Parts: sequence; C-alpha cells; structure tokens
Amino acid sequence: MDTGTPAGATDTAKRPRTERGRRTLRRLLDAAAIEFGERGFHEASISGITARAGTALGSFYTYFDSKEAIFQALVRDMSEAVKVAAREALAEPASALERERAALAAFLRFAAEHKEVYRIIDEAEFVDPESYRQHYETTGARILERLREGGRKGELRANLEEAHAWAIMGMNVFLGLRYAVWGDGDMPAERVAALANDLLANGIAAER
Amino acid sequence: MDTGTPAGATDTAKRPRTERGRRTLRRLLDAAAIEFGERGFHEASISGITARAGTALGSFYTYFDSKEAIFQALVRDMSEAVKVAAREALAEPASALERERAALAAFLRFAAEHKEVYRIIDEAEFVDPESYRQHYETTGARILERLREGGRKGELRANLEEAHAWAIMGMNVFLGLRYAVWGDGDMPAERVAALANDLLANGIAAER
Repeated sequence: MDTGTPAGATDTAKRPRTERGRRTLRRLLDAAAIEFGERGFHEASISGITARAGTALGSFYTYFDSKEAIFQALVRDMSEAVKVAAREALAEPASALERERAALAAFLRFAAEHKEVYRIIDEAEFVDPESYRQHYETTGARILERLREGGRKGELRANLEEAHAWAIMGMNVFLGLRYAVWGDGDMPAERVAALANDLLANGIAAER
Repeated sequence: MDTGTPAGATDTAKRPRTERGRRTLRRLLDAAAIEFGERGFHEASISGITARAGTALGSFYTYFDSKEAIFQALVRDMSEAVKVAAREALAEPASALERERAALAAFLRFAAEHKEVYRIIDEAEFVDPESYRQHYETTGARILERLREGGRKGELRANLEEAHAWAIMGMNVFLGLRYAVWGDGDMPAERVAALANDLLANGIAAER
C-alpha cells in the first residue's frame, strides 16, 4: 500500500530525515501490513517484516523500538490511508449526498485492494486499543463534519448529530466487510455505494 | 449472562443430560464470558474459568476439550443471546419500522449489560474466524428476513436486499460500540434507537 508520506506513522515512528529514509520507512510499513495481515500480530515477527521489506534489521530499529511500535504506526498509517482514499473522492464539487456515495465507493475500492486493513484495524482492539478507538472517533468526527456542512447548505437535515455519523460509519464498515473483504466481487463497489446512498436519501419505508 | 438454555453452545460442547449438568454448563459459559472478556483469549486460562464458575476442573473437561472449544461455544452462545434479546423485543405486534427500533433498543440494552460481548465476538475474528463470520451472516440474514416481511406487508420498500440488511446491522453494531460500550450513559438506548429509526424512516436529506 503506497499512500505517499507515511503521515500517520510519524506519531510513533522516528521521523526520517532524508528522502531515502522516507522510502525505507514506507517499505517497512508496507511490509508490516502484509506480515501482520497474513500472520496476525502474535505470529508476526520483526525479521519477517524486514525480510519482506528487503531491509536490514538495523534499518528497522532506526525507526521502531519494537513489534508493538510498528504495529501502532501501521494502524495510524492505515487510518490515514482510509482518510486519504475518501478525501480524493471528495475533491470534486458535489452535493452532500453525492459526497457520501463517493466516499463509500472509494472506501470499498480501497478495502478490496487492501483486504488486510480490516484484520489489522480489528486486531488493534486487542494489541493497541487506543489507536483502535482513535481510528473510529476521528473517522466518525470526519463524517459528522460532512453531515453538518450538508446541513448548513440546506442539502441535509439540520438536526443531524453524532449518532447519525456513527450509523453511517457502521454501514460503511459492514458493507466493506461483506462486499469488499468477504465478497467474491459479486457486487461492484459502485452498486453497493448506490444502494447505501439510496437508504440515506430516502430511508427504507414504502412510499406513502 | 444467564440466557437460559445454552442453545448456541451445544453445537460444540458435549450436551448435558441432566438439569444439574445444564446448570454447570451455563455457569462455565458465564464464567468464560467474564474470563475472556477481562483477560482476552491468550491470557485467559481454563483454571481461571473454573475458579470463577466454582466448578472442579473435571467438570470443565466433561463439556469441553480445550480453551478453544469453550471459546467457540461461548461465541455461539453469545450470538444466540443477541438473537434472543432482539426476539423478545419483537414479540409484540408492531409495524416493520417499529420492530427495527425495538430490536436495536433491545440490542443496545443487552450490550450495555454485557459489554464483554463486543470484545469476545471481535476476538473471534482471530481465534475462531468461522464462528465470527457465522455470527454476522446469521444476524444479517435475520434482519433481511424482517425487511422482506415488511416489504410483503407494504410497510417497507419491496426492493430491499442483502446490502440493506448489512447496512442496518453495521449501524446497530457501531451505535452499540459508541453508546453502549464506550458511552458513559450520555444517551439512553431508546433515544439512540429513535435517531437510527428516524434515519431508516426518512433518510437524512433535507425535506423538499
């Protein structure tokens, strides 16, 4: 997963000073995503990460003190990558509802390409509970900000609150689990996002 | 957590033949919920479970072969308990939308009383992936059945499909995480359920 500057990582990783160092750090995080994603935290090893990254063990310790430290950096990096994936989809001017649709479609495509993101963020509940909670709290806050903006523009109801943002986040996470991670491509991201968006636009009650 | 007959457990546990045996099995599962909920799968121990249950080690092995076996039985037992909690709320005649509201409120109350349910079902993703997936697939199928029934009665849209059921399941799971598990009682279950139900009834778009 190359999402450019490992922004989320720099909270817990030592910051690289050179472009070469930045690339090494990126390689380590990408390798850690595969190692933790395939083996889980407990079975994963630092030597497994450096072997996948093609770096020396010394390079690992330049940036991280432990397996826990790179796991934490990875969770924050992935949380950032989820945000970036959605933000790119939000770049074009669109209505508030269209933005939710685009954000979900982008997330579904991201999750299909990086199926390990679920396993790693979910395992953070046990390995690094603070990063786990932070991931959902910041994601929920971002959705709430979009809902409020839509409210101010008169496109969405003005009384939307945190519970609506968490409801939408839960919808998106579970649709990603079902169709991007467990799915066999039986339903394209665009169609899943369109169905969810129709629910947000119209609800599920029969027309009166 | 006493949910009566440990129905979900009997797939993987040896079936008790007597009422006394049934009570011992129930005590072991309730003790396991606390032990796994507090310590996590890896730190939890069989002796910790039997100490909490007040049973001899021999009683444990009457019903389970291993820590893995009781964990699996517990996940299925909790999955069943979630179903039972919702079903009791659904017993009264009500419209399809009111049923969704009642099911969510019941789930939120259940999760607030049994906060360990999240940690245990979430840890199943790593310890017992098949039970994890089965929990969500059967829960999603149950919601879809309710949606289709509502469609047949003309109360809900006739074109609701699996994606809508998973969207609603995700909403419910994340609202439970935020307000029942992480919440400090800042929002009562009935109000969370009412907000989510309003989203299902009307969507989030501004009125036109």
